[in-house]
Amino acid sequence: MSQYQTFTAEQAVAYAKEHSGLVDPSELVRAEEIGDGNLNLVFKIYDTQNVSRIIVKQALPYVRCVGESWPLTLDRARLEAQTLIEHYQHCPEHTVKVIHYDPEQYVIVMEDLSDHQIWRSGLIAGLHYPQAAQQLGEYLATVLFYSSDFYLHPHRKKELVAQFMNPQMCEITEDLFFNDPYMEHERNNYPAAIEKAVHALRDNSDLKVAVAELKQRFFSSPQALLHGDIHSGSIFVKSGSLKVIDAEFGFFGPMGFDLGCAIGNLLLNYCGAEGLFDKPTAQQAKAQRLGDIETLWSTFTERFSVLVKHHGSDQALCVDGYVSLFLRNIWRDTLGFAGTELIRRSMGLSHVADLDTISDEAQRHASLCRAIHLGRELILHTDVITDGDSLSAFVRRAF
Amino acid sequence: MSQYQTFTAEQAVAYAKEHSGLVDPSELVRAEEIGDGNLNLVFKIYDTQNVSRIIVKQALPYVRCVGESWPLTLDRARLEAQTLIEHYQHCPEHTVKVIHYDPEQYVIVMEDLSDHQIWRSGLIAGLHYPQAAQQLGEYLATVLFYSSDFYLHPHRKKELVAQFMNPQMCEITEDLFFNDPYMEHERNNYPAAIEKAVHALRDNSDLKVAVAELKQRFFSSPQALLHGDIHSGSIFVKSGSLKVIDAEFGFFGPMGFDLGCAIGNLLLNYCGAEGLFDKPTAQQAKAQRLGDIETLWSTFTERFSVLVKHHGSDQALCVDGYVSLFLRNIWRDTLGFAGTELIRRSMGLSHVADLDTISDEAQRHASLCRAIHLGRELILHTDVITDGDSLSAFVRRAF
Repeated sequence: MSQYQTFTAEQAVAYAKEHSGLVDPSELVRAEEIGDGNLNLVFKIYDTQNVSRIIVKQALPYVRCVGESWPLTLDRARLEAQTLIEHYQHCPEHTVKVIHYDPEQYVIVMEDLSDHQIWRSGLIAGLHYPQAAQQLGEYLATVLFYSSDFYLHPHRKKELVAQFMNPQMCEITEDLFFNDPYMEHERNNYPAAIEKAVHALRDNSDLKVAVAELKQRFFSSPQALLHGDIHSGSIFVKSGSLKVIDAEFGFFGPMGFDLGCAIGNLLLNYCGAEGLFDKPTAQQAKAQRLGDIETLWSTFTERFSVLVKHHGSDQALCVDGYVSLFLRNIWRDTLGFAGTELIRRSMGLSHVADLDTISDEAQRHASLCRAIHLGRELILHTDVITDGDSLSAFVRRAF
Repeated sequence: MSQYQTFTAEQAVAYAKEHSGLVDPSELVRAEEIGDGNLNLVFKIYDTQNVSRIIVKQALPYVRCVGESWPLTLDRARLEAQTLIEHYQHCPEHTVKVIHYDPEQYVIVMEDLSDHQIWRSGLIAGLHYPQAAQQLGEYLATVLFYSSDFYLHPHRKKELVAQFMNPQMCEITEDLFFNDPYMEHERNNYPAAIEKAVHALRDNSDLKVAVAELKQRFFSSPQALLHGDIHSGSIFVKSGSLKVIDAEFGFFGPMGFDLGCAIGNLLLNYCGAEGLFDKPTAQQAKAQRLGDIETLWSTFTERFSVLVKHHGSDQALCVDGYVSLFLRNIWRDTLGFAGTELIRRSMGLSHVADLDTISDEAQRHASLCRAIHLGRELILHTDVITDGDSLSAFVRRAF
């Protein structure tokens, strides 16, 4: 089986038996395709007790939700496997474990996380995982530090930057985050009712200049090996545990992009809260989202600073006082990228369930407009919002 | 002749005859080794009329001025040839022409520029080439624009960034610019008489934080294919003409690094003027250097903006108003990198003749201290110096 072919459920079971690393692989008997993403086949492999034991993920050569007319490199399976392996090496607590990667079938066999749930689903159900924000901050600080100039030898860093060039997946981000929402494009997707907000956004030339700077930073700031797509749908949580999955957008980019995506998705849920929940639950959910953002940022900065202090190897970068300046710049990027995430998820190709599942139409539209408005404000006010607490206060004042 | 061996003069002539592209290569009869740099053998190949017709440059596997104890990658010959070829493609007026590149012998055959002189020699001799600054601004705007995100397709840009990874040569810059001067290191080289200025520099923690940020930008800002070492000794001039040579430090880095090196070297000559010249000549030379810096920056910004307007291809980056913001950021980097060049040329491994050839010892030491002082001020005051004219005024106020 060396030529690429997409797996049937039976083939996925057979493949899992070969590569599961289980003591008794003959236990594996059944596969269920559960891919709800856009790009891949994902099989859960069950044992004789009907317990899912392992995941087989295979890259498809096109964007699944659009169809075969939008071809997409299979090389992303390599990038996903290698990104997860790099991240796991430094942060096994919070990275899904890759058990086997097959460069010919573009298949990753990985640990099953059925005892967890997708964070986004939890957030939409009004659940709060009090440790998740802290664990996400620890994950980001760890994986970004260990792939940064603070830690890596400059020769090794350059090798990794080349190895993780991810032109096709980056192009998706370049288009969906920084181009489409700010122009007319057939990929955009928003209800006619919010047209006014869309047009106001496109008429804002200061905003477009600020977005251009963010795109330039996305293009040309290989600060660390990013996850590249770390929204609440790429994160599994259960009580006391958080695991990151789905790293096919991994590449060396600006740290603020990962932080901005993560924070942007908490803010998307914040913007939808009044449509998703009854009034008291909405109030509580909004406070929890802002608390999570504060925790995420404070954990990230504390952990990153400690890592620089104890494990930093670049003499010039590890000088007293530099990490604070560096983190101030990362925070500015974070706010900007969070803003682009809020905007593109409200009017671009790919939406989030936090807004799209709001059943009341007026509430749904109001939530989309809130997200667009907040996105714009974050991009334009990076200078006055100085940290997580200040962001909380800013958001609370806005709505 | 496929295994690498360093050329004798005779071998250089034989090689030139094979690869000169001349109609009658039998004219070539004699070679003279003229390498005054640190890294290479450079032969001028003369014809029967004793006219030099062509250059044969071969990379040595070690740093020539230190000896075989400092090995250095021969791959830099590829990087030099490919950088010059890329730059020539867009700016043939101001880039030396590569006639032949040999990846096995690490040899570049290139056009002879004996009718030009090295700009640094002219500057030290008190000569002024009134067109040089403008032509250098045009060269930098052109080669940097055509290798930037404004112009290149993102896929092509990523390919080129990987192709031009230059870890060993970058490491030299990383060490000599951003580490050595700010610590005790055996590679440093300065007279005991300026020890006080050196110690004051190393005690300045704000300065070290700012230098760390510059190093971080050098590490992680692949904005364009830089020359990487564009001081006045890498530039040939004659009346009406300017040609750039010696691109073995070529890599994708922050545009301000090239601009800063160029401007830093004009400022080094400025700092040495009172030791190099009599009083009226010194006054004139200083005014000319500042005038050149103003012209260089204004030409660069005008030309770069025109190129973005007429040939820019990235829709988001080409939005009205963005290029001004981008150039403001490049200018800030430029000042900082110019400052590091002033400092490392005054107390680090590699000095410049503009200061070292000052025969009066007290004058020489005063010039070194001026360069160190000015370097520090530029790095610390990037926020208040807004353009070339403002830089001129700042320097004039300082000395």
